Amino acid sequence: MQKTDILVIGASAAGFVAATMAKTMNPNKDVTIIRIEKQTLVPCGIPYFVSPGVNSDKNVMPTDKVFQDAGVNLTIGEVTTINTEEKKCTLKDGQEIAYDKLILGTGSTPVEPAWLAGTHLDNVFYVPKDKVYLDKMQGKLAQCKKIVTIGAGFIGVEVSDELVQNGKDVTLIEKLPHALALAFDEEIAIKTEEAMKARGVKLVTGMGVTEILGKNTVTGVRLENGETIEADAVLLSMGYRPNINLAKEAGITITREGFIKVDEYMRTETPDVFAVGDCAEKIDFITRKPSNIMLASTACAEARTAGMNLFKLSAVKTFNGTISIFSTAIGNQGFGVAGLTEQRAKSDGFDVISASFQGVDKHPGTLTDTHPQMVKLIAGKETGIILGGEVVGGPSAGELINTIAFIIQNRMTVNGILTSQIGTQPLLTASPAAYPLMKAAEILAKKRLGL
Amino acid sequence: MQKTDILVIGASAAGFVAATMAKTMNPNKDVTIIRIEKQTLVPCGIPYFVSPGVNSDKNVMPTDKVFQDAGVNLTIGEVTTINTEEKKCTLKDGQEIAYDKLILGTGSTPVEPAWLAGTHLDNVFYVPKDKVYLDKMQGKLAQCKKIVTIGAGFIGVEVSDELVQNGKDVTLIEKLPHALALAFDEEIAIKTEEAMKARGVKLVTGMGVTEILGKNTVTGVRLENGETIEADAVLLSMGYRPNINLAKEAGITITREGFIKVDEYMRTETPDVFAVGDCAEKIDFITRKPSNIMLASTACAEARTAGMNLFKLSAVKTFNGTISIFSTAIGNQGFGVAGLTEQRAKSDGFDVISASFQGVDKHPGTLTDTHPQMVKLIAGKETGIILGGEVVGGPSAGELINTIAFIIQNRMTVNGILTSQIGTQPLLTASPAAYPLMKAAEILAKKRLGL
Repeated sequence: MQKTDILVIGASAAGFVAATMAKTMNPNKDVTIIRIEKQTLVPCGIPYFVSPGVNSDKNVMPTDKVFQDAGVNLTIGEVTTINTEEKKCTLKDGQEIAYDKLILGTGSTPVEPAWLAGTHLDNVFYVPKDKVYLDKMQGKLAQCKKIVTIGAGFIGVEVSDELVQNGKDVTLIEKLPHALALAFDEEIAIKTEEAMKARGVKLVTGMGVTEILGKNTVTGVRLENGETIEADAVLLSMGYRPNINLAKEAGITITREGFIKVDEYMRTETPDVFAVGDCAEKIDFITRKPSNIMLASTACAEARTAGMNLFKLSAVKTFNGTISIFSTAIGNQGFGVAGLTEQRAKSDGFDVISASFQGVDKHPGTLTDTHPQMVKLIAGKETGIILGGEVVGGPSAGELINTIAFIIQNRMTVNGILTSQIGTQPLLTASPAAYPLMKAAEILAKKRLGL
Repeated sequence: MQKTDILVIGASAAGFVAATMAKTMNPNKDVTIIRIEKQTLVPCGIPYFVSPGVNSDKNVMPTDKVFQDAGVNLTIGEVTTINTEEKKCTLKDGQEIAYDKLILGTGSTPVEPAWLAGTHLDNVFYVPKDKVYLDKMQGKLAQCKKIVTIGAGFIGVEVSDELVQNGKDVTLIEKLPHALALAFDEEIAIKTEEAMKARGVKLVTGMGVTEILGKNTVTGVRLENGETIEADAVLLSMGYRPNINLAKEAGITITREGFIKVDEYMRTETPDVFAVGDCAEKIDFITRKPSNIMLASTACAEARTAGMNLFKLSAVKTFNGTISIFSTAIGNQGFGVAGLTEQRAKSDGFDVISASFQGVDKHPGTLTDTHPQMVKLIAGKETGIILGGEVVGGPSAGELINTIAFIIQNRMTVNGILTSQIGTQPLLTASPAAYPLMKAAEILAKKRLGL
């Protein structure tokens, strides 16, 4: 029987980072990673490689070379059972691997809505992290003109935008009142909708789909109001569910929400077994309640934590809970959100104040390629602690939301921001005198004083 | 005699922000700002509006409207004396203004090298924050083909790059071994030089200028090695010195380094007098030694602090010293630095470790417009506290260095970074699994463990 010190199951973002970090921190230990797929995709890149003619080979994670360089052993295969007593895994081909420490990074799978008729029809697709499936889908989409996407979360939005840029007639349908309604506050969700419409995506919001129509192949969808929309293909982007069957069958504790239960060091309740990424339980950094965030960036943070704490606990700091940090691009606009939206903070019972400032992302704003830049901050009314932030801007919005993410994770206050220093440059950032993050903090300070 | 509650002298970045923040925090107080210039420029924008034909009107700070909206009174005039006993200022035209609180934001002026022969010649220019001077200079530069810039700090670099893009033959001369040698570590300074050369700037480094040549009008410069370089115009960008005469004559304490002495609330040693921006003393956030950083972004942070602490001290946090945060753009590359460089940290006696990681600023790197992105981190060897960081990347480098700036200002450690979460998006940031900031921290963690 093969034996390894550290065994990682799953080689997408979470497994990849867990394995390399484990090897980094434990260079004398033997690290083995097992994955089912011959090739793994960069998960967040998938929306940008769905269009027919776009070669998804360019979206393959260059993991094999990295594993080799890092000294991590790679096995292609499917683990079918885990024996946590004997500390060994059995693969589909009967092979057994014994481990000292086991890290589960089994990921997630698209939600398949059992209540929706017609999902079995030809040309109804999901967006799984599966290169073989997606390449086949691309081939089929090449024949299609009219595409309906159901579900306007990040995947639905990004896939729709990409397809419309590649000449498809795309209708994006969302049951909630707005696209990205769970991610952003309403006024910002509306800005994302405007950006999508300007790019040519047809949006139907506040409207569910009751049926996918067609005999063998899909021909359209029926909406709650009885109307139908023609479609040559339907993409279902209705979220993802954690892959936990392997863990569950091994007797590893699963939470009520259906994730593998972990503590702040990413340890499951079973000795020597860790879980990271989409399959692992998340506790919200601020609300301390269960969270169902599934993000590669979160997965990587968990993976680093697991990799650092396998054999002895890293004394300084643990994983303090999950903070949602999203960003997306629609055309030349960037959108980002970190922590709680105002709506979410209020519905979770926080007494909050918020402030927005609209500026520009270069200075002066007369420079070429200047984009409007808006920052919204949400803070505890009494404490002044920043609970969340949202950004609408140009391409720098993705890093700006990370600045806000560090502000939240350091539990900074409004005053803390105002006495902090930033760097500014005409071609790269807003003006120091009208930096939207600082101006929003200034408005918050004023509100807190009741002025 | 006119009377105002809060009087601000100088209306560039520091004075502007101090006045508006003072009014924000004290809406019932009367705030008056005095400036000499009819129009003030966006200071950091100056390099991008020096080329002949480029209209500097587009670089005027839209302050008058902002002052009006904010309820701040604007006076155009020159304060010639301050009477700190009677708490009043006298203007050149004899007018007097009494104040309760006074904020000095008198700025800085280009260094004029007294030791250098020929600075009096026609077509020898400085880069002051003075629209009238700069507009006149633009007119003269229109007649010139060959331009020599002396001093490769940020202003020299940005001005040279802008002029060469506008068809001028530009030679940039620096006495230190590298351009931007005081700002960046050597390996990164070299990258800025490569970027400048690729854009067509001729660079002469490690070589001083001994004389500016010419009879009435400049014809060239002589180098230390005896060679001469022809020039139709010479730009001197050899740094700035604080404008402190007004304060000095009023008996306000000046430091040995020639700045107005202030405490962490930006109070001078004279009651009710504050100083902010280039004219005010700076203490380094990390080394706790005097610093000669003059940045609009720093000025604004000081101005916010002053504006918040005029009448009673803001309890939560003071201005914890100056952290240098620079960024610049050369072509489509962005460069940033925050805190101490490795070289500076070592020369200041810190026992440090450093690590760099080179990745890309989108993911996968096969996406259009992907730039290489390198992050270098410098940390205390024993404490693991981040002392500095440097970034070479694309346009998002300006916000990424601000993330690092917040990391430093929160005194985060290597482990703190590794267990923090970031947001990533294919079109906006590096991959979560190879985010250069995190990978550099990972290498640091490994080094700290002696692995």
